[in-house]
Amino acid sequence: MVNPYDSPPASPRYSYVEPHQRQTQTLEQAPSQRDDISRRIGEIKLIGAGPGDPDLLTMAAYKAITTWADIVLADKLVSKEILTLVSCPLFIANKDKGCQASGQQELFERATQALRQGLRVVRLKQGDPFIFGRGGEEFLFFRQLGFEPTIVPGLSSSISGPLLANIPLTHRGTASQFLVCTGTGSNDSIPEMPTYVAHRTTVFLMALHRLEALVQDLVELGGYPEHLPVAIVERASAKDQRCIKATVGTIVQTVKETGYRPPGIFIVGWACEALAQDSNQIQGLTDSLASEI
Amino acid sequence: MVNPYDSPPASPRYSYVEPHQRQTQTLEQAPSQRDDISRRIGEIKLIGAGPGDPDLLTMAAYKAITTWADIVLADKLVSKEILTLVSCPLFIANKDKGCQASGQQELFERATQALRQGLRVVRLKQGDPFIFGRGGEEFLFFRQLGFEPTIVPGLSSSISGPLLANIPLTHRGTASQFLVCTGTGSNDSIPEMPTYVAHRTTVFLMALHRLEALVQDLVELGGYPEHLPVAIVERASAKDQRCIKATVGTIVQTVKETGYRPPGIFIVGWACEALAQDSNQIQGLTDSLASEI
Repeated sequence: MVNPYDSPPASPRYSYVEPHQRQTQTLEQAPSQRDDISRRIGEIKLIGAGPGDPDLLTMAAYKAITTWADIVLADKLVSKEILTLVSCPLFIANKDKGCQASGQQELFERATQALRQGLRVVRLKQGDPFIFGRGGEEFLFFRQLGFEPTIVPGLSSSISGPLLANIPLTHRGTASQFLVCTGTGSNDSIPEMPTYVAHRTTVFLMALHRLEALVQDLVELGGYPEHLPVAIVERASAKDQRCIKATVGTIVQTVKETGYRPPGIFIVGWACEALAQDSNQIQGLTDSLASEI
Repeated sequence: MVNPYDSPPASPRYSYVEPHQRQTQTLEQAPSQRDDISRRIGEIKLIGAGPGDPDLLTMAAYKAITTWADIVLADKLVSKEILTLVSCPLFIANKDKGCQASGQQELFERATQALRQGLRVVRLKQGDPFIFGRGGEEFLFFRQLGFEPTIVPGLSSSISGPLLANIPLTHRGTASQFLVCTGTGSNDSIPEMPTYVAHRTTVFLMALHRLEALVQDLVELGGYPEHLPVAIVERASAKDQRCIKATVGTIVQTVKETGYRPPGIFIVGWACEALAQDSNQIQGLTDSLASEI
């Protein structure tokens, strides 16, 4: 099994990955290999790839990338194990710091070109396309171009991450609602802190690089009690997934001692302990779901 | 395609559905047909079935119900199209009003019996097991019995429902967070109303039977403006999925005019209009994702 968090092959903006069975094929050659291509109108699906384990792809996503698509456009965040399943030309956008705008622009150009050639395009996004994935913006781009995308939901790590660490976002008598928000506002600003609600589980994404400031805001601005359980789920669904348990008052020190391996989700609320056997400690590595089925 | 919202076969508490290929098999006969069964220890997976379309099953769920499981225990909410895929004995719990406790008890007894026989048990739950599915309580039951369940996330309709109606719960410049809560508190009480936050999308589940009272609370207790866009997504992912668009101030009258077909999700916030072309009207029926792949 490939570690999905290894870096994909380097390239200035795009990586172009030939599937094994089509070593000599290029995008430009592909259409001529299908008789019906000239009569087709381009189609696009915006598809969520889930948190990383291929077994957590939806059937719709699996079918789309293995048999439906003529071309797949993915982000670097999509796991290698999933990208390995792609059976057509695959482009991976480079959105490293400083390249986000140009990487996105090139992705749009590639997709536009393919759609105008009458191809079936899959835009594969990590997690769910509409949860902090800017999928809505891509949807509007393609609609404006005359190609209304089909949206296929994927498992968002905001929900599946806690679950895979045995943390139920809702649990009778413990949490009757959950809030998903970001720990970093637009343009790296500090987001508005949601105030403490005892029967709510709060999930912060993109928060761990500023954990200390966030925890300070939780206490001082949000009124969160220091003894409230919290958890960090690192690399959800990967073979080396890890869950760090602590409280609002102890999490910063705990992470200083254990280290932290991105990406991670920060979960705040009583639900963190609803199913716990051993609290206040790191839970062991989990096996991939794939291994036993 | 079968309408997943037709009633499953009636039975006092359980429906026992023989797969086509095993017309004469019963649960008691099943173990003897596998040589290795006597050496096995019972295993259980708590699996989310997603909103209803079989194409929105995860690969893990599909493999579990088609090849891994010796027995599948499901709720009536799980769609017929998904139950058709089950290739082993299938029990469907009857949790009609007045039968919830006894239906759940019988399900626990069936599962316990199977686990003690060394069988592989799948407990298949609608949506995601940990989002208002009481999966945590089942988890604790089986752990106490000595069988630690594996949890497999599924697409929760709280997220996938809005997405399938082209409503992004988060959208840059519109919504930077989302809250999922219930419109009905425990024991049919009125839940605490979350106050209005302009950059938040709020999703209410189990809310539509008391829509009028809920909307009144939104305005009077929560401070939600009457012109705020709202949407109801009915039967998410089914072939007859429908989305009704209105505002806080007009939704009650709109539903009086259009009627309402459960189950449905109530979405409140500016994101309802982020990708809309035609607001304030019912959007047409959507095709099943399954039809085109």
